[in-house]
Amino acid sequence: MEHTVKSYEAELSQLDQKISHMGGLVEQLLGNAFASLERRDPRLASEAIASDRAIDLMQKEIEELAISMIARRQPMAQDLRTIVSTLKVAGDLERIGDLAKNVAKRALAIAPETRPQSLILGLRHMTELATASLKNVLDAYMTRDDVKAMKVWNSDADLDALYNSVFRELLTYMMEDPRNIGLCTHLLFGAKNIERIGDHATNIAETVHYMVRGKPLEDDRPKGDKTSVTMIDTP
Amino acid sequence: MEHTVKSYEAELSQLDQKISHMGGLVEQLLGNAFASLERRDPRLASEAIASDRAIDLMQKEIEELAISMIARRQPMAQDLRTIVSTLKVAGDLERIGDLAKNVAKRALAIAPETRPQSLILGLRHMTELATASLKNVLDAYMTRDDVKAMKVWNSDADLDALYNSVFRELLTYMMEDPRNIGLCTHLLFGAKNIERIGDHATNIAETVHYMVRGKPLEDDRPKGDKTSVTMIDTP
Repeated sequence: MEHTVKSYEAELSQLDQKISHMGGLVEQLLGNAFASLERRDPRLASEAIASDRAIDLMQKEIEELAISMIARRQPMAQDLRTIVSTLKVAGDLERIGDLAKNVAKRALAIAPETRPQSLILGLRHMTELATASLKNVLDAYMTRDDVKAMKVWNSDADLDALYNSVFRELLTYMMEDPRNIGLCTHLLFGAKNIERIGDHATNIAETVHYMVRGKPLEDDRPKGDKTSVTMIDTP
Repeated sequence: MEHTVKSYEAELSQLDQKISHMGGLVEQLLGNAFASLERRDPRLASEAIASDRAIDLMQKEIEELAISMIARRQPMAQDLRTIVSTLKVAGDLERIGDLAKNVAKRALAIAPETRPQSLILGLRHMTELATASLKNVLDAYMTRDDVKAMKVWNSDADLDALYNSVFRELLTYMMEDPRNIGLCTHLLFGAKNIERIGDHATNIAETVHYMVRGKPLEDDRPKGDKTSVTMIDTP
């Protein structure tokens, strides 16, 4: 019995280690993806894109281990909650990896652009916020820290507000000069991807809350992206 | 024992019924979302947006039933594969619901627009392809029809090709006349959402293949969206 309990805890800690490893890969991909966009560096972009495959494989590994633990050990209550939470966190990390990969794809597209670099400043700030959320929510997961998770949850409103202003700013550049349209369209999609990364960090925060508290977060997520319903004054 | 087997099969069929019901809700949401975009009908858009909540709840129900079946019944091989597949399909349907909801949000934004309706024709064709894929892949799931699933999988290249041409077309409208920029930006995001719906139908096709054949599809998904790496000639 002692042995069973121990190896069960060993499996749980193995799940955590895999999540931690996967989170590290995702942080690295996001960093490289934005750097490749900012520097218009197609080589770094290609590396970032290729690195997403390792993240997908990690998700599969985590899924397989989690499902086999549920089937073999028939965990109850708290333990089942923890294992299911791991599945959810892995799913969100995989999506963040996809979104970061999409940012790197935009970098390939704009690599030959000669329009001013300044257009990308808003995205840099967005990436800084998203990176901090990702890092903090992974810490919160590893330490089962509900307070820290809720801080991340609340901070997503800032990223959404910033996205709203970046969206408007990019539209004005497009209206000002049609030569900006190609570049700014790619940056608009890039900005949307980063905003969505914040949403997934928020999902992970909700999962941490559920793991620690044993019940789902009652309130709705703060939804601050208003751009999809923004009426644009076209001159 | 007889009883146990029967009630297990009853639970499996309950899972299928829930997936079928969820799929129906998603199809309806997608139809309403595009109709609200085409007719610039904010009331229908709001209804479509609200209907996504029922889809999210269905996913939770399916997850809970599937996880509890795995924990209680410790299914092996084929049965475990089927239950895990249900989890995956529910996940993709939830994402399709989200993407369709985003299309409806764009409809709210463009409702007051007076620019010509013709700009949306490409998106209508895209929606028709995505709707057919969704319907066919759900049929393939319910009948465990691998051949039908693979047809859906292959057809995604058409949707991607169409997205590429819609993307380019919308950019030319923007360059031609800055008054089109606001509307076309929303349509670009809408088109991207529909293209992503095709990707999730493709995921479901892969899951059907895995359920029926017992092994994952070897080849990579056909990736035809080249717009994220499209170099745009700006005049």
